[in-house]
Amino acid sequence: MNNIHVIGLGLLGGSFALALKKEKPSLNFTGFDASERNLKDALTLGIIDQSSEVIPAETDVVILATPVDTLESLLLSALDQIQENTLVIDFGSTKEALCKAVADHPKRTQYLAGHPIAGTEYSGPKAAKPDLLEKKVFIICEMEKTDVHLKGMAYDILESLNMKLRFMDPEEHDRQLAFVSHLSHISSFMLGKTVLDKMEDDKNIFDMAGSGFASTVRLAKSSPAMWAPIMEANQGNILDALDAYISNLSKFREKIAEEDKSGLKEEMASINKIGDILDLGR
Amino acid sequence: MNNIHVIGLGLLGGSFALALKKEKPSLNFTGFDASERNLKDALTLGIIDQSSEVIPAETDVVILATPVDTLESLLLSALDQIQENTLVIDFGSTKEALCKAVADHPKRTQYLAGHPIAGTEYSGPKAAKPDLLEKKVFIICEMEKTDVHLKGMAYDILESLNMKLRFMDPEEHDRQLAFVSHLSHISSFMLGKTVLDKMEDDKNIFDMAGSGFASTVRLAKSSPAMWAPIMEANQGNILDALDAYISNLSKFREKIAEEDKSGLKEEMASINKIGDILDLGR
Repeated sequence: MNNIHVIGLGLLGGSFALALKKEKPSLNFTGFDASERNLKDALTLGIIDQSSEVIPAETDVVILATPVDTLESLLLSALDQIQENTLVIDFGSTKEALCKAVADHPKRTQYLAGHPIAGTEYSGPKAAKPDLLEKKVFIICEMEKTDVHLKGMAYDILESLNMKLRFMDPEEHDRQLAFVSHLSHISSFMLGKTVLDKMEDDKNIFDMAGSGFASTVRLAKSSPAMWAPIMEANQGNILDALDAYISNLSKFREKIAEEDKSGLKEEMASINKIGDILDLGR
Repeated sequence: MNNIHVIGLGLLGGSFALALKKEKPSLNFTGFDASERNLKDALTLGIIDQSSEVIPAETDVVILATPVDTLESLLLSALDQIQENTLVIDFGSTKEALCKAVADHPKRTQYLAGHPIAGTEYSGPKAAKPDLLEKKVFIICEMEKTDVHLKGMAYDILESLNMKLRFMDPEEHDRQLAFVSHLSHISSFMLGKTVLDKMEDDKNIFDMAGSGFASTVRLAKSSPAMWAPIMEANQGNILDALDAYISNLSKFREKIAEEDKSGLKEEMASINKIGDILDLGR
């Protein structure tokens, strides 16, 4: 393995390249970004060594780390371009549509459907950092459909980055991510909106905001260019998650309206166990 | 100023005493907690020097740092007990009802209605830490109703703790806190519940949870004994905040259902500015 080509040089693609460079300094990194500014920044920051709009013939692994609405065409075009010993991995936040789109492609075995569970509310190459992926979960979907030798290269990379592998169906992936990731982003955006609307009456309302508010609203700084396509691609699951969330909020609202203090206490106490679950999960 | 008496030796009361001890080592701290265990822990951890169920006669400042449903009777009883040069400060998360309850008390001038905007999702004396209040906002309501000389003692303490003072009406306080604090806690609890419910079908769903989920759900570890009374005391404002939040979620849901990608992008982009506002506010 000598050459890696990264398409999409933002937070995730950039962090991946920086981390892998550190572990395997002999690798050569080429790459491309539709934004000229990102491309320039990625070169300046040493994320890639050379820019290249086409995938160089000698590339071993192509990484696709762009918003999910661009992945299908990028993936199909990458598969059309590559040699027989090249692997393409995508980092998209939704997997079902992409796996379907590529299911009958003659080079399906040269594709690995991946998703690193890592990110921050910031985006772009300047937000990239070499430890972003460290010890994070990397989900692989339909692993049985990828060529065994090419898969070996992917495992080698993921192991050197200290990532924890998980395997699941694309449908299961998208359903679960709607609840543990996509819903959190929507709840955060809407919390932000609710308080921004309130600011019209209460100008100094943000003076009162403590660390709790900052924590729940942090994701409202996330990139719309990344998140609108996720909401489109995972529409059904996200609507399910949102409906469950709104229903829970409405029932909790009724308990407050009815002054059901013991009901509120019991409910919150039973949710407190999430603390243990999350701590165990780390 | 020689003697401080702290009633309620949990996260907030404990952190206050630890911090003030560090700044003014000559002060003597007495205190009490309805939980025997908390009281014992507070003595072991050096939060207080002696335990005392009654307020010692020579006390300069009494701090009330208990759940909001206990504050009214504790405040009235404290005012009844104290000498004329003693000040009582409460740290309650809601202020309107308490200020009303004490409005006609003959010793009203010996009370300062306070609220430090500080906390974590943990509770009890073991969660207390001397830097919790450092550089945080301390809200004072109805400052004009407190005796000028007694208020001087409070300013002296708050200044030595490096806190930033803000002054507002109790009504304004409760309304704003419903939006920037109480709503965040409810959104977090309900996010936790929505995913815990989902765990019945998808056992390993928490494996997929990244730092974004952890951040939005962190407050779901908060103490029900503290939060159920806040929801009761600030019912009207919390219902307003929740209704606005649920309405925003429902409208956003419609945009997703209608595949209004440009509408979603615009909405999220306009909420992104909360990042600048929060950063400026710190």
